[in-house]
Amino acid sequence: MILIAFVQASNCSNYPASWRHPLTAPGFLTPAYYQQIAQTLETGKFHLAFLDDRLAMPSQYGDSFADAVHHGIRAVKLDLVPILTAMALATRHLGVGATYSTTYYTPFHVARLFATLDHLSTGRAAWNVVTSLNDAEAQNFGQPHHLDHDRRYDQADEFMQAVYGLWETWAPDALVLDKSRGYFADATKVQRLEYQGHWVQTRGPLTVPRPPQGAPVVIQAGQSHRGRRFAARWGELIFVLFRTMESSQAFYAEIKAQAAAYGRAPDSLKIAPAIYVVVAETEQEAHDKLALIESLAHPMDTLVLLSEIFNYDFAQHALDAPLDDDVLASLSGLRGLLERVIHSSGKRNPTLGDVVEHTQRGTIHEFPVFVGTPTQVADAMEAWVRGRACDGFVLAATHMPGAYEDFVRLVVPELQRRGLFHTDYTGPTLRENLGLPPTQWRSLP
Amino acid sequence: MILIAFVQASNCSNYPASWRHPLTAPGFLTPAYYQQIAQTLETGKFHLAFLDDRLAMPSQYGDSFADAVHHGIRAVKLDLVPILTAMALATRHLGVGATYSTTYYTPFHVARLFATLDHLSTGRAAWNVVTSLNDAEAQNFGQPHHLDHDRRYDQADEFMQAVYGLWETWAPDALVLDKSRGYFADATKVQRLEYQGHWVQTRGPLTVPRPPQGAPVVIQAGQSHRGRRFAARWGELIFVLFRTMESSQAFYAEIKAQAAAYGRAPDSLKIAPAIYVVVAETEQEAHDKLALIESLAHPMDTLVLLSEIFNYDFAQHALDAPLDDDVLASLSGLRGLLERVIHSSGKRNPTLGDVVEHTQRGTIHEFPVFVGTPTQVADAMEAWVRGRACDGFVLAATHMPGAYEDFVRLVVPELQRRGLFHTDYTGPTLRENLGLPPTQWRSLP
Repeated sequence: MILIAFVQASNCSNYPASWRHPLTAPGFLTPAYYQQIAQTLETGKFHLAFLDDRLAMPSQYGDSFADAVHHGIRAVKLDLVPILTAMALATRHLGVGATYSTTYYTPFHVARLFATLDHLSTGRAAWNVVTSLNDAEAQNFGQPHHLDHDRRYDQADEFMQAVYGLWETWAPDALVLDKSRGYFADATKVQRLEYQGHWVQTRGPLTVPRPPQGAPVVIQAGQSHRGRRFAARWGELIFVLFRTMESSQAFYAEIKAQAAAYGRAPDSLKIAPAIYVVVAETEQEAHDKLALIESLAHPMDTLVLLSEIFNYDFAQHALDAPLDDDVLASLSGLRGLLERVIHSSGKRNPTLGDVVEHTQRGTIHEFPVFVGTPTQVADAMEAWVRGRACDGFVLAATHMPGAYEDFVRLVVPELQRRGLFHTDYTGPTLRENLGLPPTQWRSLP
Repeated sequence: MILIAFVQASNCSNYPASWRHPLTAPGFLTPAYYQQIAQTLETGKFHLAFLDDRLAMPSQYGDSFADAVHHGIRAVKLDLVPILTAMALATRHLGVGATYSTTYYTPFHVARLFATLDHLSTGRAAWNVVTSLNDAEAQNFGQPHHLDHDRRYDQADEFMQAVYGLWETWAPDALVLDKSRGYFADATKVQRLEYQGHWVQTRGPLTVPRPPQGAPVVIQAGQSHRGRRFAARWGELIFVLFRTMESSQAFYAEIKAQAAAYGRAPDSLKIAPAIYVVVAETEQEAHDKLALIESLAHPMDTLVLLSEIFNYDFAQHALDAPLDDDVLASLSGLRGLLERVIHSSGKRNPTLGDVVEHTQRGTIHEFPVFVGTPTQVADAMEAWVRGRACDGFVLAATHMPGAYEDFVRLVVPELQRRGLFHTDYTGPTLRENLGLPPTQWRSLP
């Protein structure tokens, strides 16, 4: 079983109300806050801590950022790289991943950055590939509107080819480092890329020798129809959002089959759904903890975050009025989630209330909540993995760092006792720890 | 006197032959290498360590990167942010600066990044603003040619307005952090920017609360006519390359007058020329060290780096043939350096040999070399500062980390004994340590 922590360089976790939790630590503007989380995760032998991102405040609802700022609904998003570096430096084995958008960054920058992170972390870097979501992000980057959904993925396909190509521009044995002869590296083992796509161009070579993992691990979370194709082609770790085991099972079978169609072994990509865990020594105590956590939510959390991910101002809609076809067509961002609402509600034109109910965005019930004693939580996790719904989990935090501390103290030993989870890191690199195939270097044509 | 270390996230220092030095440490791909340098600098009470950058290998000479790779002429350039973060985390007072290009990055990214670094370092971040140099960089970023020199600066002016504007989008007292009321921040103290320039647009607000320094310190190094105007307008620390005290004196007077024309107090910008120091207990020993260092240079170091900074392939020119007007007009990149060659050589059409001689690019004599005993080195530094040629120095390294270790052990105590250099850090922020004025927050119009 793979375990990944879903971390935010933000005032809150995935659960926006988390910052209101009495046990949430202050210090989201300090490195120590993130380093403490990283060390807790490494104590628990987590494979990876991964940071999500958003390049604008939520500001679609009511065409204003005021609710996000007032209620602290992901109002803060720090740059991820300093945070990730701090976490890597505080640990020795934990993988460290960051989200980088193929829409608002450039392939040379991304390739250089993750190659550097991979060197400095001695092979523990991962890149979560996203195409970004909404107009607020576009406007921060000087564009009036976010790119069309499918076009973003077409561009992202080129971006991936360019980044992988740049990681191939140094052969693994190019460095010579002979001071006395002044012979630094073998120039015949460094090559240009000359990538000329329709949207993406870059020449190379990269200014960083080949990273220790060959290629940092690629994470992907696309769940729309187009996003699944992208994930099946490029993703090594696939993050998914499903509220039931059955839907995750269906996805699991489908994406592994799609990957095979791209010539990939089923084991070369791992599926991990996001979950919350609320665990305590007794069932009653766990449910009391859950009740406290649920009580922190504010209705605005959901409306603000739904407007954000669908790139649409829901303030103009009553909860019980069906969203007409024009509205549905204009929703962009997380299209996969909309497809799910239509499917689960059984309505071609769901209401805003249906969208709230079937996504639970911004509440703790957005993801499955495994609540109870360590045995009960481990039972649920075991059922999903043995049921081929996933290869592991992305653990979102109800509050920071307490949710991780509880999990590491109570659940990890139980998973290890059952032989479901490793008792130590096996390889020096994240790729090895995840059981992913090594990256072969290929000379470019 | 201000002291700044000129550090590279590279296989070599400013002096490309430095990697061939017997005492140069291995490990330029590890954080420990940079952290050791940072700790040495903090022991010596340096104000700032700053990382330069280049977004492509040198590959103009002979239209190939082969010489750069073979001889190790700045063939490696890591992403700076993980390195800078590692240095910040290993220190408590040292300022940490990174170069970021206004041509290949975006204002929202830069504003968010440096605000984050400023928070995580508790007010020690600096940004070295460059407009980039050559076609190789452009081609890595999907553009056939580098932008015209003056156009780059016009765009950079807008970029600066946008970045400063984004740093103003949170009032200093916007955060409330009241968990019990769920009141995170005062939305009336967060504002949009709505910057609409000719080349640069960004909406804001930034997703990072106001940084501890208000604005991270801005470093600038433009020496061309247009570059000086930019530096006088925006620069707080101005890095300069002059081979004589007289030329630095002339620049010092001119730029402080220009700053006054922008309504700035002369003390609100500090001038620091790059120097090398070769110091030892005895004069003979220092000269022996210098001779060893000089012996490491290779003629290709100079030709490769001249072609790189002028964005021009000098392989087609004999050393003694005058460069005609068309060639001179086509040289871009560091225009200020070309203006200096024409001035110093007294030739309207200098030869390639003149360019080599009057720049000494890639040799240790590119910058003034202060060589000798601690007393002799301190004498030279004192003369420049008392002669109003500068407010301090940017110390380039002949080899790493030895050049800094020698300087800290031998020269710093002598400068302190003379009362020329502080004996401890005075303020919590870099801005205070440099004696720069505080940044006032202004509500946007």
